[in-house]
Amino acid sequence: MAQTLEVIVFDVNETLSDMSPIAERFVEAGAPAYMAKLWFATLLRDGFALAATGDAARFADIGTEILTGLLEAAGVADPEGTARRLASSVADLPLHPDVPDAIRALRATGYRLVTLTNGAAQVAENLFAMAGLRGEFEQLLSVEDAPAWKPHPSSYRYAAQRCGVREQEMLLVAAHPWDIHGAARGGLRTAWVNRAGAPYPSYLARPEATVTSLAQLPSALAGTS
Amino acid sequence: MAQTLEVIVFDVNETLSDMSPIAERFVEAGAPAYMAKLWFATLLRDGFALAATGDAARFADIGTEILTGLLEAAGVADPEGTARRLASSVADLPLHPDVPDAIRALRATGYRLVTLTNGAAQVAENLFAMAGLRGEFEQLLSVEDAPAWKPHPSSYRYAAQRCGVREQEMLLVAAHPWDIHGAARGGLRTAWVNRAGAPYPSYLARPEATVTSLAQLPSALAGTS
Repeated sequence: MAQTLEVIVFDVNETLSDMSPIAERFVEAGAPAYMAKLWFATLLRDGFALAATGDAARFADIGTEILTGLLEAAGVADPEGTARRLASSVADLPLHPDVPDAIRALRATGYRLVTLTNGAAQVAENLFAMAGLRGEFEQLLSVEDAPAWKPHPSSYRYAAQRCGVREQEMLLVAAHPWDIHGAARGGLRTAWVNRAGAPYPSYLARPEATVTSLAQLPSALAGTS
Repeated sequence: MAQTLEVIVFDVNETLSDMSPIAERFVEAGAPAYMAKLWFATLLRDGFALAATGDAARFADIGTEILTGLLEAAGVADPEGTARRLASSVADLPLHPDVPDAIRALRATGYRLVTLTNGAAQVAENLFAMAGLRGEFEQLLSVEDAPAWKPHPSSYRYAAQRCGVREQEMLLVAAHPWDIHGAARGGLRTAWVNRAGAPYPSYLARPEATVTSLAQLPSALAGTS
């Protein structure tokens, strides 16, 4: 794989950031812990519905509106303000502990590193600024500048164009199977980060490589060169 | 609206069937009640991800696989068997009480009635057989025979072709805003069934008509003719 691979594209939410603290923040705000997962699934559902019709809206806008409705239905006080606060806290999450060393190792090997998120590019900026990793990344990209969200093929094409490479010269690293699926359909190489040991959905395009920690990624890439 | 309107296309799950008993069945199976909503949102998320890449899988297959994972994570015994049983119970739900009279009134007015579901056509068959309504419907359609799921435009085009009309001569009636959005983008007329009094998402194409009960639909159509 390493022979023709130029650019490694990282997804951000859940792939690099640890979203598990979100559930506690929901509880602190008076909402049930499970609502964090329901919110994220519903937010992606509507974003993907837009992608399926060739439309798009901003992640934060969809997220805040859906969360307001969920909090209101659950009887939480000041649903709109609470939704805004919880939604913006996605930008204030820790990196998974396996991220910094793996990023530095991959960069030291000579790969060009970028991120591509369905959210705002600012989320990756914040994550890396705190961890002192911003300098390892060439570009922090968002689908806000692409025609549609991931997993629509135009989102990965946009990243390839911004990097000046062909899709086949890019590897997408993501924790979400739907992202692996879209990248594979778009002609990218793929590595699935499966920290929880989950089964891979049978109905989605399979990853080329699977790692249970980003720490395995450098050797996974070397092994397939 | 009635002048050029030939065919009324009904969505099935939640639009005609009352899905609220599903939550009780989850509890009876040892799963938390909220899992019903999380399951349905996650199932649609993955189905829409496939639609965004021009792919498709069967609703029951995605649904059973996702539910198995959710039940397993929640420590429910026999997750696969329980998932299969719960997923198939979508075909065994009551109609909303406002459905039968409205269907008969619309048919008596001369509209041609069909259904279009992301699930199996058999679900609508079961619903109508029990309620003695099957004879009111010309066709019960499923996206299983279309190129992609709703809200992809090809799903509504498929329904128009099967009915031998243009998209503009069809009205989609649906409880889900993402369905209204897709139909509007596909050139159909749209009526949103908002039984719960929810706000309409600002980021989706708006419905031409909104009713809080199907009982209002005949007069809503007459009023816009």
